[in-house]
Amino acid sequence: MTTPTGLALLTDLYQLTMAFGYWKLQRSEQHAVFHLFFRKPPFAGGYAIAAGLAPAIDFLQSFRFESSDIDYLATLTGNDDRPLFDAGFLEYLAELRLTCDVDAMPEGTLAFAQEPLVRVRGPILQCQLLETALLNIINFQTLIATKASRISGVTAGEPVLEFGLRRAQGVDGGLAASRAAYLGGCAATSNVLAGKQFGIPVKGTHAHSWVMSFDDELESFAGYAEAMPNNCVFLVDTYDTLDGVRHAVEIGKRLRERGHEMVGIRLDSGDLAYLSIEARKMLDAGGFPQATIVASNDLDEHIIESLKGQGAKIAVWGVGTKLATAYDQPALGGVYKLGAMQQPDGSWQPKLKLSEQTAKTTIPGVLQVRRFEQQGTLVGDMIYDETSGIDSRESIVDVKDANRRKHFPPEATSTDLLVPVLRGGDLVSRPESIHESRSRATTELARLHPSVRRLMNPHEYPVGLEIGLHELREQMIRDRRWGSAS
Amino acid sequence: MTTPTGLALLTDLYQLTMAFGYWKLQRSEQHAVFHLFFRKPPFAGGYAIAAGLAPAIDFLQSFRFESSDIDYLATLTGNDDRPLFDAGFLEYLAELRLTCDVDAMPEGTLAFAQEPLVRVRGPILQCQLLETALLNIINFQTLIATKASRISGVTAGEPVLEFGLRRAQGVDGGLAASRAAYLGGCAATSNVLAGKQFGIPVKGTHAHSWVMSFDDELESFAGYAEAMPNNCVFLVDTYDTLDGVRHAVEIGKRLRERGHEMVGIRLDSGDLAYLSIEARKMLDAGGFPQATIVASNDLDEHIIESLKGQGAKIAVWGVGTKLATAYDQPALGGVYKLGAMQQPDGSWQPKLKLSEQTAKTTIPGVLQVRRFEQQGTLVGDMIYDETSGIDSRESIVDVKDANRRKHFPPEATSTDLLVPVLRGGDLVSRPESIHESRSRATTELARLHPSVRRLMNPHEYPVGLEIGLHELREQMIRDRRWGSAS
Repeated sequence: MTTPTGLALLTDLYQLTMAFGYWKLQRSEQHAVFHLFFRKPPFAGGYAIAAGLAPAIDFLQSFRFESSDIDYLATLTGNDDRPLFDAGFLEYLAELRLTCDVDAMPEGTLAFAQEPLVRVRGPILQCQLLETALLNIINFQTLIATKASRISGVTAGEPVLEFGLRRAQGVDGGLAASRAAYLGGCAATSNVLAGKQFGIPVKGTHAHSWVMSFDDELESFAGYAEAMPNNCVFLVDTYDTLDGVRHAVEIGKRLRERGHEMVGIRLDSGDLAYLSIEARKMLDAGGFPQATIVASNDLDEHIIESLKGQGAKIAVWGVGTKLATAYDQPALGGVYKLGAMQQPDGSWQPKLKLSEQTAKTTIPGVLQVRRFEQQGTLVGDMIYDETSGIDSRESIVDVKDANRRKHFPPEATSTDLLVPVLRGGDLVSRPESIHESRSRATTELARLHPSVRRLMNPHEYPVGLEIGLHELREQMIRDRRWGSAS
Repeated sequence: MTTPTGLALLTDLYQLTMAFGYWKLQRSEQHAVFHLFFRKPPFAGGYAIAAGLAPAIDFLQSFRFESSDIDYLATLTGNDDRPLFDAGFLEYLAELRLTCDVDAMPEGTLAFAQEPLVRVRGPILQCQLLETALLNIINFQTLIATKASRISGVTAGEPVLEFGLRRAQGVDGGLAASRAAYLGGCAATSNVLAGKQFGIPVKGTHAHSWVMSFDDELESFAGYAEAMPNNCVFLVDTYDTLDGVRHAVEIGKRLRERGHEMVGIRLDSGDLAYLSIEARKMLDAGGFPQATIVASNDLDEHIIESLKGQGAKIAVWGVGTKLATAYDQPALGGVYKLGAMQQPDGSWQPKLKLSEQTAKTTIPGVLQVRRFEQQGTLVGDMIYDETSGIDSRESIVDVKDANRRKHFPPEATSTDLLVPVLRGGDLVSRPESIHESRSRATTELARLHPSVRRLMNPHEYPVGLEIGLHELREQMIRDRRWGSAS
């Protein structure tokens, strides 16, 4: 596995051809502002958990073109078979150091459609070169943190263990998934390297192969108990599940005679509702009412909800593939769009991309998000342009439907969500531990109305444009449409 | 982005607790054989393209526990809050060097359900420690190579460009996807780091933000043409697509006056069938019949097939999220199962895992796959046990249905698919270039009957067990079921 030390080339080629274009036309230093946002929360849900900022900061802080990168770029040719890039441009890249300002939502912040999770402001060439890697990192971690939050929400406090590494999308797909899953609410991961790198709890006992490597199941449990008498969670479904439970009870009794207590059993196949109920009865009858039943096997939030509805006696939930790959929606469609260009006089000229799909028309400006709260409950978010300020602090207009407006009560308190991360390329934010981010996710979620957290058909949390920004955008849409019709 | 140098900890914790158990019971050196295989080809298709062996070899060759890994493992505690692992075991891990034998299908080989893609033979402790990382690497690369093969199959020679990095699952999710996509048939990637690391072609021109950063579209195209006159593929849908095509034609004419030729245009939204047909007419009428139309926007093999059916005039296909995340099936359910344990006398005792789902009952033995070919067409594969040999070279029995048997004509030629990769932990296979693997995928696919390559409801390629192996397995299933009923 080749592990890159510098990630400046972790980008789409068109970022470099555009950078070359800006440089060649002497526009590379003109300042621009870009916003990273998504258009719809994932999994048909009502919210997302912003994640990925810490690895994004690592990327930004180590951003530079290594000499081997420059050498590689010098080998690329265009359609005329001549070098794609001028030598002068490659020298410029070799010397390039970031001078951007970056603002972002701290990890664990609740994020909604159209809200910038990250804002990058600085020379347009630099903004462009950061796009792909920022999207890659933030899109995926936000996706997985959100999935983990949904799953943990359903188990209502019962621990969820993330087991997805073997089916994850690549090495870092697995590492990033384990990190984001913990941030979003999981209790632990099976991924040992993630435990080492991110300081998150790791869990695990044994697999079917342990059982199969012995002549019979009872002997295999006895062997495990001998090796790790205080850490026995027996996997009982290698041959016949309820026989397996009987064997676990038998070994549990032998352990107890020697002063140890069996931790529990794990079910990994079959009808988990039926088997957990029967196993619970057998464990209780055998004298093990405290023994935990762990279950796994293609679980996700919907299956867990159904199992709980059926009275399954499962106390710990192992979730793998469906979580680590966000199986039902394996990508968050986050985008990174130009919001404004700075003019020679220092003012910002707002920029708009039109689309036949209204939801894809962008929001112009240098954007910030203000979140309103009343009596401990979040009541709505306002997207506003920092450079033009706020006309009416209480009112927002829906992005997709100008007739939907919302007024916040004057007594509502508010917070701006994007906080400074880099200024002139230097880190200005305090590094945050993953436990802090995880705790933010939990706290914020508790302030969200339960109807917005619902798995299916959630209530739509109010997010809108500040009125002045709404009016500017409408005007720009009209101008652009008339312009193109002429 | 923390990039691990040693990946020995890229594993599930239970591999280490089992390893500890084997060590503690003095069973760690007993030899075992494990097979990595999948139970169903992905995407409801008829085949998979084996991929990931080269990065798996990198992993195997650098496998060792670093001192920081050992230090981390020493911090882990069990349910009794005491160290999970004995110091003696950690010393054993610190000294551990692989001594396994590994055999595998070369990358680009066609693989079918139940066939080992990788076989690992050696001390059971080592086999177990390799499981998770091998699954992670092989599962994902095989998944993406197969997706790329399906997509490239539909475009029938028209180039497919992989653009998925921004939505990929993490940094390495993106890198691994770009590599596997090329191996499976894509012509190039937008991912510059993948270009550098794997020596695969990179492509790209400009984004909407380029257009938006200028006052109008025409000016933006003119600017791009000035900077890169021989590499102009204009993205035409920032405002109004057909206006965009007009602007491209205008700039194309100016380019031609200066002795350059416009390469083409790119469509990234809207009705690609309609817009490509209209754009083609406008380009032709404008004097640019050679200008290429590139299209992108949530494409996959099904949408491409539909667009081609509608007569879309698209010559180059940009495929992103749906390819790089294998959107409709983001994980290959590959597993790694114990096949046999070596006895003190050197003989191999076959091992079987039962399951209520017949397809999940494993195949015992030390397995190899023999592929039969007749007159340039693949006719079927035989899974057999290397240690017991082949009773009848011409006959196979279906794994799921013992009544389905197939006889190969005696004149069919055959090849064994698993080739030696490591012997005693040392590399014995010749490193293969990705171009070689890619070419194998293309060549092999051409030898497969078109009905097996069909996107939907493909014909099932015959894969079965050698008769002696079939009979052994049936006997073991009966013994195991009787055993558990007693």
